[in-house]
Amino acid sequence: MRIKDIGGEFRLIDRVTRRGGAVVGIGDDAAVLRYTKDKYLLFTTDMLCEGDHFKLGWYTPKQIGLKAMESNVSDIAAMGGLPTYAVISLSLAPETTVEFIEGFYKGLYESADRHKVKIVGGDMTHASIMVVNVALLGEVEKSMLCLRSGARVGDLICVTGDLGKSQAGLELLKSGAVGDVTGHLEPKCRLKEARKIAKYANAMIDVSDGLASEVNHICEMSKIGAIIFKDLIPLSKATRKSAKTLGIDPYQWALSGGEDYEIVFTIPPQDLKRIRLDCPISVVGKILPKKKGTTIYDGKVRKPLKGGYDHFAR
Amino acid sequence: MRIKDIGGEFRLIDRVTRRGGAVVGIGDDAAVLRYTKDKYLLFTTDMLCEGDHFKLGWYTPKQIGLKAMESNVSDIAAMGGLPTYAVISLSLAPETTVEFIEGFYKGLYESADRHKVKIVGGDMTHASIMVVNVALLGEVEKSMLCLRSGARVGDLICVTGDLGKSQAGLELLKSGAVGDVTGHLEPKCRLKEARKIAKYANAMIDVSDGLASEVNHICEMSKIGAIIFKDLIPLSKATRKSAKTLGIDPYQWALSGGEDYEIVFTIPPQDLKRIRLDCPISVVGKILPKKKGTTIYDGKVRKPLKGGYDHFAR
Repeated sequence: MRIKDIGGEFRLIDRVTRRGGAVVGIGDDAAVLRYTKDKYLLFTTDMLCEGDHFKLGWYTPKQIGLKAMESNVSDIAAMGGLPTYAVISLSLAPETTVEFIEGFYKGLYESADRHKVKIVGGDMTHASIMVVNVALLGEVEKSMLCLRSGARVGDLICVTGDLGKSQAGLELLKSGAVGDVTGHLEPKCRLKEARKIAKYANAMIDVSDGLASEVNHICEMSKIGAIIFKDLIPLSKATRKSAKTLGIDPYQWALSGGEDYEIVFTIPPQDLKRIRLDCPISVVGKILPKKKGTTIYDGKVRKPLKGGYDHFAR
Repeated sequence: MRIKDIGGEFRLIDRVTRRGGAVVGIGDDAAVLRYTKDKYLLFTTDMLCEGDHFKLGWYTPKQIGLKAMESNVSDIAAMGGLPTYAVISLSLAPETTVEFIEGFYKGLYESADRHKVKIVGGDMTHASIMVVNVALLGEVEKSMLCLRSGARVGDLICVTGDLGKSQAGLELLKSGAVGDVTGHLEPKCRLKEARKIAKYANAMIDVSDGLASEVNHICEMSKIGAIIFKDLIPLSKATRKSAKTLGIDPYQWALSGGEDYEIVFTIPPQDLKRIRLDCPISVVGKILPKKKGTTIYDGKVRKPLKGGYDHFAR
């Protein structure tokens, strides 16, 4: 049986893994483990594979290091926590140069330093492709923990910054067209912002697989419905320009592209004004009762909210 | 510059990573982190790559899962600790079947259950090869922590079980010859034994890269010398038989083969008799002052103890 025959990676994960064993286990951005009286320990892991997540010709070694760390810190951010310690596994092709690995570690440490992460161990091996795995610990005050499962009917659905920029960069790189590719090559996670959001939000998730996927995760885990208003999805000027260049609908990038590492959160309307960030916050939808389903309104019709990046769907 | 030009993977790790940030960081089997009043938190990671660590035709999916977990638990065992929580990253080729992944997780959970490890999260993606990364947490009582750096002059160097069996199995599989390949396909770590050893040992390490490499790590970290007596290295009947079949010196497998996941430890002579295990313990050498160097005596001459598996040496 093929993975796509049973409905893709998320169904597969449901099928092969067991729940339980942690305060919150499989099914959120990071596992939540018992720790101290006031805090939980957070534990997450992320693998980046050459060919699938990055092409060596597009990225500098430093950019690969940066992205590997930012994507992991983003998972800790999305729980309301602060990252602490990382261990790095690295497989390299035998012909990899020392200079390449030095560049990679430079990026890794630059991001780690920015987020006060200490790299305390690792494993280095070789394979036919480069693979990077970052496993990251974090801490969160019990009062700050923010799960995918906390959304409540009436909450606004909000997004930090803008979406679709990573996929925009990827499409530009694929086509060879000129435009802004930094959203793909140097994504930055929203650790500082997420800490402020977590004080008031009911649910939180980071954008690794696209807005559609993330909102569906929140709805599934919170057992509620939602409506997203397509026109409210924030797109940058650069992303719109890239879309025009390539003749592609940029909203598809926002909904299904992923790797933007922005934060999606749900919050009671009266609490939204309490959050002051250095980046914009956009209200993109609303949490509804479960029976209303999870839909997107494009100005004319409501459709089921589908999409989101699935590694095995294509 | 190529990795082997600067002296292989261990020199490379020295070059690109920073020390510090943990109680014990890079340079032992697992990182040691502050935790509770009486205990340290242990944190380790290990990557297994198709082609380098396993060939799909040789292993059943279940055996890959077993080996991935055993090799990580072995790192926690080698610190004197007990494993607690794991997160799993898995890259799969798109054509991978659901049955394959189910088999893999069966092995992973079988080993996890044996060692009371809870799998609490993960990441699933795809790539041109299968890559498994297990990141594992553990705990150790402060009084039980056993590092590579604790060896003292006069200690005996001891090994659990027997060595070379993993490499023996690999060579049999490569050549197509008949013989015992379970040491390669289904290695078992020595968690229970390591907990008993840790009460009395001064230094401890698991055999992932071969006895020569592990003894050299202990000598380097403990700033001492050592002598290994080749005739005392324990080899099983099956390993000797495989060596005879293939016309290879089995001691080379023990010294440089790796992946046996036995425990190498150093202990004051008078304390050795306090340890009671279900498996044999062999005294293979002695810790000497640093100026004596690290050597192996083959019954005729003393030579520098070289060898150990280096992923980038060949």
